[in-house]
Amino acid sequence: MSLTDVSFLITDYDFDNITIATLGSHSALQILHGAKLEGFSTLLIVEKKREWFYDMFSNLIDFKVVVDSWKDICKDRVLSYLRKHNSILIPHGSLIEYVGLENVEKMRLPIFGLRSLFRIEANQRMKMEFLRNAGIKIPKEYTLDMDINSPVIIKFPGAKGGKGYFIAKTKEEVIKGIREAISQGIITSHEDVMIQEYIVGVTAYYHFFYSPTLRRLEILGADIRYESNIDGLYRLPPDLRESIRASFTVVGNIPLVLRESLLPKIMRYGLNFVKYSQITLPPGIIGPFCLESVIKDDGEIVVFEFSGRIVAGTNLYVTGSPYSSFYWNEPMSVGRRIAREIRLALEKDMLHKVIT
Amino acid sequence: MSLTDVSFLITDYDFDNITIATLGSHSALQILHGAKLEGFSTLLIVEKKREWFYDMFSNLIDFKVVVDSWKDICKDRVLSYLRKHNSILIPHGSLIEYVGLENVEKMRLPIFGLRSLFRIEANQRMKMEFLRNAGIKIPKEYTLDMDINSPVIIKFPGAKGGKGYFIAKTKEEVIKGIREAISQGIITSHEDVMIQEYIVGVTAYYHFFYSPTLRRLEILGADIRYESNIDGLYRLPPDLRESIRASFTVVGNIPLVLRESLLPKIMRYGLNFVKYSQITLPPGIIGPFCLESVIKDDGEIVVFEFSGRIVAGTNLYVTGSPYSSFYWNEPMSVGRRIAREIRLALEKDMLHKVIT
Amino acid sequence: MSLTDVSFLITDYDFDNITIATLGSHSALQILHGAKLEGFSTLLIVEKKREWFYDMFSNLIDFKVVVDSWKDICKDRVLSYLRKHNSILIPHGSLIEYVGLENVEKMRLPIFGLRSLFRIEANQRMKMEFLRNAGIKIPKEYTLDMDINSPVIIKFPGAKGGKGYFIAKTKEEVIKGIREAISQGIITSHEDVMIQEYIVGVTAYYHFFYSPTLRRLEILGADIRYESNIDGLYRLPPDLRESIRASFTVVGNIPLVLRESLLPKIMRYGLNFVKYSQITLPPGIIGPFCLESVIKDDGEIVVFEFSGRIVAGTNLYVTGSPYSSFYWNEPMSVGRRIAREIRLALEKDMLHKVIT
Repeated sequence: MSLTDVSFLITDYDFDNITIATLGSHSALQILHGAKLEGFSTLLIVEKKREWFYDMFSNLIDFKVVVDSWKDICKDRVLSYLRKHNSILIPHGSLIEYVGLENVEKMRLPIFGLRSLFRIEANQRMKMEFLRNAGIKIPKEYTLDMDINSPVIIKFPGAKGGKGYFIAKTKEEVIKGIREAISQGIITSHEDVMIQEYIVGVTAYYHFFYSPTLRRLEILGADIRYESNIDGLYRLPPDLRESIRASFTVVGNIPLVLRESLLPKIMRYGLNFVKYSQITLPPGIIGPFCLESVIKDDGEIVVFEFSGRIVAGTNLYVTGSPYSSFYWNEPMSVGRRIAREIRLALEKDMLHKVIT
Repeated sequence: MSLTDVSFLITDYDFDNITIATLGSHSALQILHGAKLEGFSTLLIVEKKREWFYDMFSNLIDFKVVVDSWKDICKDRVLSYLRKHNSILIPHGSLIEYVGLENVEKMRLPIFGLRSLFRIEANQRMKMEFLRNAGIKIPKEYTLDMDINSPVIIKFPGAKGGKGYFIAKTKEEVIKGIREAISQGIITSHEDVMIQEYIVGVTAYYHFFYSPTLRRLEILGADIRYESNIDGLYRLPPDLRESIRASFTVVGNIPLVLRESLLPKIMRYGLNFVKYSQITLPPGIIGPFCLESVIKDDGEIVVFEFSGRIVAGTNLYVTGSPYSSFYWNEPMSVGRRIAREIRLALEKDMLHKVIT
Repeated sequence: MSLTDVSFLITDYDFDNITIATLGSHSALQILHGAKLEGFSTLLIVEKKREWFYDMFSNLIDFKVVVDSWKDICKDRVLSYLRKHNSILIPHGSLIEYVGLENVEKMRLPIFGLRSLFRIEANQRMKMEFLRNAGIKIPKEYTLDMDINSPVIIKFPGAKGGKGYFIAKTKEEVIKGIREAISQGIITSHEDVMIQEYIVGVTAYYHFFYSPTLRRLEILGADIRYESNIDGLYRLPPDLRESIRASFTVVGNIPLVLRESLLPKIMRYGLNFVKYSQITLPPGIIGPFCLESVIKDDGEIVVFEFSGRIVAGTNLYVTGSPYSSFYWNEPMSVGRRIAREIRLALEKDMLHKVIT
């Protein structure tokens, strides 16, 4: 979807009746809630089996599209319905995962966010390359023909919530672990695998928001992920712990604020990300993105992932975060901030600047 | 206290001057705070030794009953005073613990909540049976004549804040630990003990609220417990850690949000709990309850406890939680939600439906 | 700065145009944000290299003093500018660290807080002595000529964010660790070192606020520190963990509420602190202070540090904490509470009572 393609997505839209649409998963409740607070109509695309659940929040939902499978969102019937309601789609972590990258790339719907970034986000190597080129410190990457003398973390592509990730400290352990993952069908080949330097420190996730209408970067929150079973293992007696394989499935999020003296470094990374996206993928990032880091004990921050859209950690801050208050003296979630940005864009006749 | 008994509890009450009463402990400040926000008078029953503390929050307290010992609450003088003020008692974790199950069961005061559930909650085995019958996944339970081949956690009845709980991985360790507990006077017999499969994963506690007036189940928050010394032990060097016995005394709570894709499972459990309570203990659960779980790395949720009333983890959300905002666009704690429910019941002439 | 010296600091001030001033670090954003909410002008003293960062929050800043180095704050030019704007300086953790104790002690600016406490806070031994004399339980302190039979933590004076702290369990380990610290230049002599009993339990930090205008002590929040690398080490496989030296650099904070039954003990400690400061350092503590503790599994609370001013953990509660709501039915951060106290003092003609 090139830059010049954008306006055709909304030429037939009634700008006085924009609907905010999203998929029923990930951060949908927050997105819908924020949209209602900003006075928009809302539309939820929801799988039949989860309909009963979202019906419990019917106060947040004006229109509902029930699908048998997520991919049905690409069907003409669904797209027409969404377009008829002047829908802007808010992408989140489940969109690419469930609908598929190529389907999303060519989907004839305005998306709030930078569509061309999805392909990069979907590929671990391109993603790390993007961060490095943006001037953001990342972990060293290893290949299997290199010496491995310090701890590494092995990551599998498209693993839901970090499933199957493991830590190793020798090449033998890496190879053994990858073989197991292949035999268990988690991956099909060792080529899919990323071997990253394991940064010793603590994890921290930063929720950024770039506003094209205000031309500014905001930090709207931070969190720590709560992962099963690793965040429970330390509660086991040491001898027992050693017999259980650690796993890293994200099941929730815990709030965090950072030392204020770390914030300039964090914001610098965020600004670097924005600028590099503007240069290489014009018009550049729109709205929420997340840098996912380890903070070392010397204060260095190493980024091992990014998300080019809203992250689930923002679900902590439905009524605003410590940081969002510095910009907005009202309860401002990322979900609401998205709707606010669309509202601002409509007021400034800039809607084509916040969609791709 | 049978269903038909309820109305006699409030026949002489002045519905225009209802007072919300609770014991000075556990979640009292939150309950009083919420009651004031909803325009009720408040009454605190407080032990003499803690009176100075609650006096620091006198803005939240209209009437105060100072007792030498908690059991004095059952005395005629106290009950008459509470009834004179048209008091509805809000039960919390300290009520049964300090006043005693039988005293609470026969107490001639309207209680916001399901009084008949207290007896089940007080008995570990009946509690687990209740969950299982409700269709909620629970850990396997062991007896001492069974083989024990995987980790188990040993729990003692009525242990305050999980005191004395321990993890074992062989029957020998179980027996040794129980003997120690008996010799230390924590329990009097191994019959009191519950041996549960230790579920490997991370803990998560869900704060539910069933509203008879709106006939709906709300999720109002989630938390992780902060337990001494287990949540500090990992900070010790490994060799030191091994020399210290883990303990699980709850001293606080940390906020948590869950992956949205886990919420349908959680709400299903909540609905199952409500329905089963309505069938077996009519009129069924009223107001707050909590399911206490481990989330496994495959996303399965196993519930190892419930509380049939407000839990202390809700103290995190005095100004509302990420979840409460989805139902109420105002700062809605569980304490305030209780008062709101009583307010709604009064408006709908349904007070007899929210007390037992 | 003796008590009688205070009024000369503000004789030439225009009380209708008070400015709240602070250094650009630590909790500056919160302090500025709170000051604006209370209707004050704000002034930020900021290092040249961080100016770009604080410019991103220019909505919170009315006046800005850019300095090449923090110590420039003591220059006449800067002090005159601050005095011209009728500035009250809000001290935080970076003030003593960057400007120096003696410079702050003699600085000709009204400071919101107890200036004479800074000297005690800067000295580990005087600090612990202060706590003990106030009637607050502290860990046993060891010297190198005593037997060491239980775990100890070794602390270095003025270590930023706990850098270099280590845990040991024998005298040999203590001596070895101190020698290393000397050889690495972290300290110059073992005399600077504090050897404290390591209390097994969980850490908890309590945010107090003493109000001279209302003559009351408030608890405005609690937190857990998030420390690199110790809070990430447990995520490593046990064999790997053993090869990495634990470190305790504070990089952030996580929210916490306490069991309500612990609050009386916590408030008692807070009251003891206030009273002892009033007796020994009149007029006594003004505004925020923090007690930093370990809670043992038997519920005993041992305090191992205090901060006599706002702590960074309060950055969690920019829109209020669970506790602040019990006093103030509006979003009350500690930053705002400071401004509110100054506002109250102005209204009651008590400004000289809240500065030193």
